[in-house]
Amino acid sequence: MEIPVVRSVFESNEKQAARLREQMKSRGMLILNLISSPGAGKTTLLERTLKDLSEEFTMAVIEGDLQTDNDARRIAASGAQVVQINTEGGCHLETSMITDAMKSLDLGGVDILFIENVGNLVCPVEFDLGEDAKVAVLSVTEGDDKPEKYPLLFKLASAMVLNKIDLLPYVNFDAETARAHARRHNEELKIFDVSCTKGDGLEAWYGWLRDMRAARKKAVA
Amino acid sequence: MEIPVVRSVFESNEKQAARLREQMKSRGMLILNLISSPGAGKTTLLERTLKDLSEEFTMAVIEGDLQTDNDARRIAASGAQVVQINTEGGCHLETSMITDAMKSLDLGGVDILFIENVGNLVCPVEFDLGEDAKVAVLSVTEGDDKPEKYPLLFKLASAMVLNKIDLLPYVNFDAETARAHARRHNEELKIFDVSCTKGDGLEAWYGWLRDMRAARKKAVA
Repeated sequence: MEIPVVRSVFESNEKQAARLREQMKSRGMLILNLISSPGAGKTTLLERTLKDLSEEFTMAVIEGDLQTDNDARRIAASGAQVVQINTEGGCHLETSMITDAMKSLDLGGVDILFIENVGNLVCPVEFDLGEDAKVAVLSVTEGDDKPEKYPLLFKLASAMVLNKIDLLPYVNFDAETARAHARRHNEELKIFDVSCTKGDGLEAWYGWLRDMRAARKKAVA
Repeated sequence: MEIPVVRSVFESNEKQAARLREQMKSRGMLILNLISSPGAGKTTLLERTLKDLSEEFTMAVIEGDLQTDNDARRIAASGAQVVQINTEGGCHLETSMITDAMKSLDLGGVDILFIENVGNLVCPVEFDLGEDAKVAVLSVTEGDDKPEKYPLLFKLASAMVLNKIDLLPYVNFDAETARAHARRHNEELKIFDVSCTKGDGLEAWYGWLRDMRAARKKAVA
């Protein structure tokens, strides 16, 4: 007689993330975990990306917020599949929330799954969500010292979107300093200067998404 | 024979905060805990305040950051006493860090002690540091939905500094919406629209500091 073994709910986030990554491998779906301060522009970046690449890729989004479904409603307007996680005060997402949220999505045929983490430059960085890559979003209004003051995200991210560059004339921000601080932690970091409101620089970001997605697909084939 | 009893290091933050608040009562020193997203302008607000009120008050600052002493060096340039806490990745300050940091300050004669918390709109809110009041700093570049999405800070804060209003012409931010969201959680919230770089609106913030300090002193007398 086989005894059913129920997996402990206390299983570590790392183990759950590793299992999720393994399960997702065969699909060839690219999973990206977007992390930033509150208001750096993650949702606007996603709105633009979903709109501009809608002919090219099937994309879905998992939104993480303490409260409200504002961001999920913004994303839904693009026509993409989206599910909102409310952490009810929690400062980051964990893999168990992602696997739960995935049950509300039809992932068959999805090429890229974006996870928009809770707005927080600290806590989300420490929680692997089974993603293929972390993407840091930094806006120029936050100050060029942020990669130096919050190093772990920039160390672990594969790409950094430097957003709101249309505001550079009005703020005290040296883009070269920000890039240098970020690259000191991570020589391989890809950096994209963009303005999501004006559209500047998005093509390079899209190019990176295409490359990442192609690499993911190739790994399966 | 008296047996020395060492206080457990695991004593709860709440108990330590309550004790610190009790100890500080007799001094008449006002303690403010500044909380915001990374880059909202807490340090610049302090730089301006320390400069503009230097004749009027003796002020000291405890700086909290994951890494670097950049902010403490900026504050020290004003001539005020300052001590830097590096949390080495920790996402918030706790009272034990404040009591430790206080040992490096000469608090005799200090009228106002500012605590600049780690840049994070979530975790620092839940940790009482023995302060008289929490001050939320929100910048207009972060979006007018932030008080709705991160309600606890705006519920618990006594004042909100709406910073970077000089950038209002360049961003999509409705100040009335932000104020309404914040006040929905907290009818008593004092709101100050300021530009720390241009100097606009600071006088009202200084008026509030004077009132708070006078009330604190009166409570002792």
